[in-house]
Amino acid sequence: MNRYQQLAEEISLAINSGTLMPGSALPSLRDCATQQGLSMNTVISAYRLLEDRGLIESRPQSGFFVCSHLPQPQAPIRKTAAILQNAKEHEIMNMILLASRDPDYVDLGLATPKSAKYYPGEQLAKITASLLRKKSALVAQYALPPGSSALKEQIAHRGHRLGMQLDPDNIVITHGGMEALQLALKAVTKAGDKVGIEAPSYFNLYPLLDALSLQALEIPTHPQHGMDLDVLEHLLQGGELSAIISMPTVQNPLGFTMDIAAKRRLADLVNQYQTPLIEDAIYAELQYAEPLQPTVKAFDSEGWIIICSSYSKALAPDYRIGWIEAGRFSHKVKDLKFISSVAESKLLSEAIAQILKSGGYDRHLRSLRRHSYEQMTTIRGLVARHFPPGTKATLPSGGFLLWVELPAPIDSLALFIAALKHKIIVVPGQIYSRQGRYQHYLRISCCQEIDDRMIEAFQTLGKLALQQCATQSAAE
Amino acid sequence: MNRYQQLAEEISLAINSGTLMPGSALPSLRDCATQQGLSMNTVISAYRLLEDRGLIESRPQSGFFVCSHLPQPQAPIRKTAAILQNAKEHEIMNMILLASRDPDYVDLGLATPKSAKYYPGEQLAKITASLLRKKSALVAQYALPPGSSALKEQIAHRGHRLGMQLDPDNIVITHGGMEALQLALKAVTKAGDKVGIEAPSYFNLYPLLDALSLQALEIPTHPQHGMDLDVLEHLLQGGELSAIISMPTVQNPLGFTMDIAAKRRLADLVNQYQTPLIEDAIYAELQYAEPLQPTVKAFDSEGWIIICSSYSKALAPDYRIGWIEAGRFSHKVKDLKFISSVAESKLLSEAIAQILKSGGYDRHLRSLRRHSYEQMTTIRGLVARHFPPGTKATLPSGGFLLWVELPAPIDSLALFIAALKHKIIVVPGQIYSRQGRYQHYLRISCCQEIDDRMIEAFQTLGKLALQQCATQSAAE
Repeated sequence: MNRYQQLAEEISLAINSGTLMPGSALPSLRDCATQQGLSMNTVISAYRLLEDRGLIESRPQSGFFVCSHLPQPQAPIRKTAAILQNAKEHEIMNMILLASRDPDYVDLGLATPKSAKYYPGEQLAKITASLLRKKSALVAQYALPPGSSALKEQIAHRGHRLGMQLDPDNIVITHGGMEALQLALKAVTKAGDKVGIEAPSYFNLYPLLDALSLQALEIPTHPQHGMDLDVLEHLLQGGELSAIISMPTVQNPLGFTMDIAAKRRLADLVNQYQTPLIEDAIYAELQYAEPLQPTVKAFDSEGWIIICSSYSKALAPDYRIGWIEAGRFSHKVKDLKFISSVAESKLLSEAIAQILKSGGYDRHLRSLRRHSYEQMTTIRGLVARHFPPGTKATLPSGGFLLWVELPAPIDSLALFIAALKHKIIVVPGQIYSRQGRYQHYLRISCCQEIDDRMIEAFQTLGKLALQQCATQSAAE
Repeated sequence: MNRYQQLAEEISLAINSGTLMPGSALPSLRDCATQQGLSMNTVISAYRLLEDRGLIESRPQSGFFVCSHLPQPQAPIRKTAAILQNAKEHEIMNMILLASRDPDYVDLGLATPKSAKYYPGEQLAKITASLLRKKSALVAQYALPPGSSALKEQIAHRGHRLGMQLDPDNIVITHGGMEALQLALKAVTKAGDKVGIEAPSYFNLYPLLDALSLQALEIPTHPQHGMDLDVLEHLLQGGELSAIISMPTVQNPLGFTMDIAAKRRLADLVNQYQTPLIEDAIYAELQYAEPLQPTVKAFDSEGWIIICSSYSKALAPDYRIGWIEAGRFSHKVKDLKFISSVAESKLLSEAIAQILKSGGYDRHLRSLRRHSYEQMTTIRGLVARHFPPGTKATLPSGGFLLWVELPAPIDSLALFIAALKHKIIVVPGQIYSRQGRYQHYLRISCCQEIDDRMIEAFQTLGKLALQQCATQSAAE
């Protein structure tokens, strides 16, 4: 990174962390150069980059100021709008999946980088190929439970970084995070049960709960602080919930990480009411800031917390190796895994174990975090610059996902359809609630490479949104 | 193969196919040598081998005769014995899985060869390694539905050999055969529904049906002719079944292949009563005799037949690549796959596609069929020689599994436990029915290498069974 880029990163961190408040003045070019011991040119380049990202703006004869038009969204008020049909949700998903296979589309939908350069693909490929050379018999051995102990040991070992004491014998290797969630739900619920989930939640939870004949109870979730624990406690007191699903660390789609006090309280509630918490930690290692915040599982004293995760997002998207540690439900989950899909490939499991052990994963994580943070910052800037006034966006604590609240008249489903016609994929907020909460929200993935096409896509999205505002105003 | 081994194989084929009936005399050594144009020594070696396998016996001053103490089991009479507890079933499974990890055990439980020599491991490893070299970016691409089209085309193409016209666009790649079965059941049933299954059936079906809150209706199944279609029709007329699960080609555990007329009738029934048939074809390509018998799906005219299969048994045990073609339920299965486990590894899928395309799979299948047939023949011989008089065994049409009926006083669960103490794994019949049908049956896997330890294991099993007979008689 050049010196001017470094400076820009430092300033954006100060802005994003709130040290530099929206509307506040930046030091003049000259003052900044003197303070930092840099040339004027370096500072000019840094300020320009920040301007391009939409983080700061120059005001004639006044200097540079932190942009103030990206406040964070508030917890939305519960709406009584028509409940979105199940069929619609899944039609939207299929449209997104279909489009994402076409390289002509700018993909702001898929929550995983498409470019191989963000992953240690070469290293993983080499490790896998070397395993194939040295132990070709591996491919001819039937994959049986309980799965690779080398991998389970690495997972338990790495759990320490997130504050967890995991028992390798309780870990079950799964077919990605999705199977882990499914096993967890099957282990602790039966048809007809109610499950408390965050609103908004990972969109694939709704069809999963449907398939298991479970009812989702949407618990209000603050974009910065997470699930409303008072509401949760009220529901637990009423004995309404058979389980809770939460993503307290780098939530999808909100990007928040609950603070430690809240995590402790969540763990205590779960323990007190003896209600299993299914903690989805798929993005937990992609927190931007180190040291990493612990998971809620770190505060689990009685085995009521089931943690699910996967290497599909952070390390090896093709391998689909996930895992679950189900505390007091571990035996049940082991049995369920056997009837769900028997076991995982030992070849792929051992390849991942090796890269974890080698330290290669840590190096990669540091670089992936930096990349995602940079892309997130740039895209927040593009949103700030091109989207209509009144647009709000989250300030994610990690990962790839930005949650954008558009001005109220805009219908994000219509915007999604219009954007698809312009070969741009975004995810409309509608699929993140069954109660019509997010009609003017968008989820934007910030992990694809930023090039001219991407920048143009944001201009187009902004124009489409403005057109909708205009049409709506005219109609009123 | 030496000439004497060839002769032995020809004679065992004649015996197993019924051309040489039990009790009938073989040509004398001299006659055989003259007829076949072979040396006396060759014929002596062949007869000795057949004797070792328990297929023929020499009677003093009379010559050689086909052994007569291995009649095939009859369809069992429905028993009223206590229903086996669910917990017990799954305790047994766990005992088997635990023991099978220990190389000190003789494994007659696992229905897949353990020795890498039966699989084209080297070739598959080379293909996979070469894919990793040429396209290392593969490992960094998120695995998304609908999965590798190269593999789906190969699957559809190979379907012709089993008489099927499969649409590649309707094929969904799954995580082994177990996920395929699960998706099929989820697509066509809801909690509380009744599903018709064969008795005996693949033991893992019971816990799967439990997990989906489905009721199993056991349909009498003849060890040679398959599911009783009159009983099935009666149930269909009564509108009792939401789905049928059947394995009409090389059934697990019975090893039969339904004849073509019966398959046609099954397809017609399914069509007439518009009730989905889930056809498990995991062993269909492992039929001993060529040309291969078609599947029931080959006679599907209206898309009511869902076919499930996998390469876990026949080609790549570690990769866990299976597939499903769900006819009129294909769209539903695609959606369900996404919420079940999203997608399969493209690396592994493409590696399998390549070996299918190269012709390597066909060469391998021919050799695997020959090996399994030889091992099956040998093990039937060992059973005939060492097990108590009155023992019956199936004559499988393919695959690895022998179904053995022990004399009535023997309790196979007790025999299973006693065998485990001698470090021998067999599968007790109890887990193949919830209605106590198979208390004195055993499933024996015939795919592990036959060595002295294996031969000794059969001597031990025979002794243990005889001891049980004696104890039972003494008690009566």
